[in-house]
Formats: sequence, C-alpha cells, structure tokens
Amino acid sequence: MLKDLSLVDYLAKTASGDPVPGGGSSAALNAALAAALIEMVANLTIGRKGFEAFDAEMRAVAEKAAGLRSRLTADVDRDSDSYTQVLKAFQMPKATEAEKADRSRAVQAAFKQATLVPLGVARDAVAIMALGRTVISKGNPNAASDGAAGVLAARMAARAAVYNVRINLGPIKDEGFTSELRREADRLEAEAEAKEREALSSLKI
Amino acid sequence: MLKDLSLVDYLAKTASGDPVPGGGSSAALNAALAAALIEMVANLTIGRKGFEAFDAEMRAVAEKAAGLRSRLTADVDRDSDSYTQVLKAFQMPKATEAEKADRSRAVQAAFKQATLVPLGVARDAVAIMALGRTVISKGNPNAASDGAAGVLAARMAARAAVYNVRINLGPIKDEGFTSELRREADRLEAEAEAKEREALSSLKI
Repeated sequence: MLKDLSLVDYLAKTASGDPVPGGGSSAALNAALAAALIEMVANLTIGRKGFEAFDAEMRAVAEKAAGLRSRLTADVDRDSDSYTQVLKAFQMPKATEAEKADRSRAVQAAFKQATLVPLGVARDAVAIMALGRTVISKGNPNAASDGAAGVLAARMAARAAVYNVRINLGPIKDEGFTSELRREADRLEAEAEAKEREALSSLKI
Repeated sequence: MLKDLSLVDYLAKTASGDPVPGGGSSAALNAALAAALIEMVANLTIGRKGFEAFDAEMRAVAEKAAGLRSRLTADVDRDSDSYTQVLKAFQMPKATEAEKADRSRAVQAAFKQATLVPLGVARDAVAIMALGRTVISKGNPNAASDGAAGVLAARMAARAAVYNVRINLGPIKDEGFTSELRREADRLEAEAEAKEREALSSLKI
C-alpha cells in the first residue's frame, strides 16, 4: 500500500509517468500531515506550566487530530484506488451494445467515486484548519511555526482535493450530481482561503 | 533517516510530542512532493501526440524537477538535524564563564544553520513554482490537477519554510545576519503568493 512506502519511494512513484499516485493522494497526504502537525503542537502544550487553562482543550484537539490523521492516511490509498477503478472501467470490452452500456455505467460509477473521495478529503482539511486556529492562538508559542505549517498543509490539501473533484466531474453525465458537487467544491475552496486567513491572523511570527 | 520512514511512521513521528520532525521537515517534504508532481505531469506529456512542440521543454522540466526532488528529500533530514543541533547546544555545560561562552557560540551557530536550511527550501520551492507554471500552461491537460497540486504544495513549502526561518532568527544576536535573512524571507513569502497566482492563472479547471 502507498501509506507503507518510504517517503523516498512514494515521491519516486509520484514523479513517474504512471497516473497514480498523483494530486489526489498528495492532497490526502497533506491533510494527514496537517493533522499530525497540529496534533504535535497540542502534544507540546499538554501538561506544560502556564498552559493549564487550555489543557482539556488541547487534549480534545490532539484526539480529534489523531482520528483525522488515521482516516486521511488511509485516503492516500483510497484516492489512488478510486482512480485505478476509472482506468479499469475504461478497459472493459465494448464490442456489443450490451457491453457498451455496461462499460458506460462502470465508467460513470467509477468517476463518481473518484470525486467523492477528494470531496471528503477537502471537508476534513477544512475541519483541521479550525483545530489549527486553536493551537496557534492558545498553544505553546515555541511550536507556532509547526501549527502554521499544519494550516498551510491543510489549505494545500483542501484546494488540491477540490481540483481533483472538478477534473473528475468532467465526464459525469448525471447533472444533479455534478451541480451539487460543483457547488460543494466551490464552497470548500472559499472556506479554505477564509479559514487560512483566520488561523494565521493570530500568528506572531 | 526520516526519508526512509514509511508515510504512516513519518506522520506518527511528526504527531508525537518530540520537537522534530516538525514544520521545517514538512516544508521540505512538500517541496519534494511539489517537484515530484510537476515531474509527473512532464512525464505524462513527453512523447505524447499533439505535444511534440513542447517535448524538449518538458524533458528539461522533468530533469530539473528530479534534481530538486532529490535535494529536497535530503532536506527533510537536514532540517530536523539542524534543529537537533540547537537542542544539543542548549545541553552544553554552563558552569564556568568559558563554558558559558562556548555554549553561547554553539547555540548561535546552530540557530544560524537552522535558518539557512529552511531558507534554501523556500528558494527551491519558489523555483519549482515556475516549473509548475510551464506544465500547467503547456503540459497534458488530463494531468492539470496534478500540476496544480504541485504548485499548491510548493506554496505550502515556501511559506512554512519562511515561518521556520523567522522563528529560528528570534534568538540570533548578529543583527547583520538577522536583517538580511528577514528581508530575504519576506521577499520569498511575497514571491510564493505571486507565483502561485501566475501558475494557477492558466488552469482551466
């Protein structure tokens, strides 16, 4: 699985001319990295003298971030797997009318799944930015640059995931589905920008 | 070494309450990821029908990106190592005046190195954004979201690295050094924003 590759090997696999892993898995990886960095700042704040008032809040942030990190690490593989299903559907036979219809249904279903995975990543990334705001404004100031890096990673994740949603919506014919996802993608893109500004506004570096 | 850890283990190590790896190594990882994604788009363009006119340019992009990916992957470790040297310098003895002077010199030198590593990462990340602009405007449009993800990863890398430069400049007493690095950090931060806008302006998704 991709999540078990070393950094060096994951990067080499991304750089190659294979279509996966690409931007979608990188978005999931950055969302997981964002969660990890914010968890780190919470862990560097819990139990520290002078931060007793925020202890319970930091424990809650660390727990939420750990859960998101786990899910988003799995999404590195889920995203590439969903695109692999698109490629497999395209390879289905299309000699007869029945085969053509089966293939078309499989292609459409696979593209839908390949928009739903990055949409989930974008939603989680936006949720992580709120945790980032908490650790930047109330956490250990020695780790402020780590919290800020987490927010920046979450913004990368949200926007890259949104681009993946949009590019995979292209071939989908179900207009109810595409218009709903396009609206949600636009909303998440705008929210990522706003939440980045909010979270970084209390940064003192 | 960090670069040989699996994604899962690297993320767990980031999330822990240890001070490294943190935002600096994450910035280097994102810069390497940016190079990998842009290299991927170039590789998905080289030799493709309809893109013959850009073949030489795409080969040059892939080669430059591969070199940057290699250097920036090493920077994941170099950044954490430089901060570990800061922690080691703080642990030096300070019983006598001579020891105090030695310790102070070592702390100052270690902090300087801990600003120079992320400064290099920020410079490389900004250079990668120019390659990103080329692949987005002239490369295989099926991989446009991958090129865009690369530019977003480079922007994360540049800004997170700049925050690391600034936080590590704090304790440095050499004012000539700090004012020069602060100016360069400000310039790179502004350039990352401008180059992101430029690169994404030709994106059609």
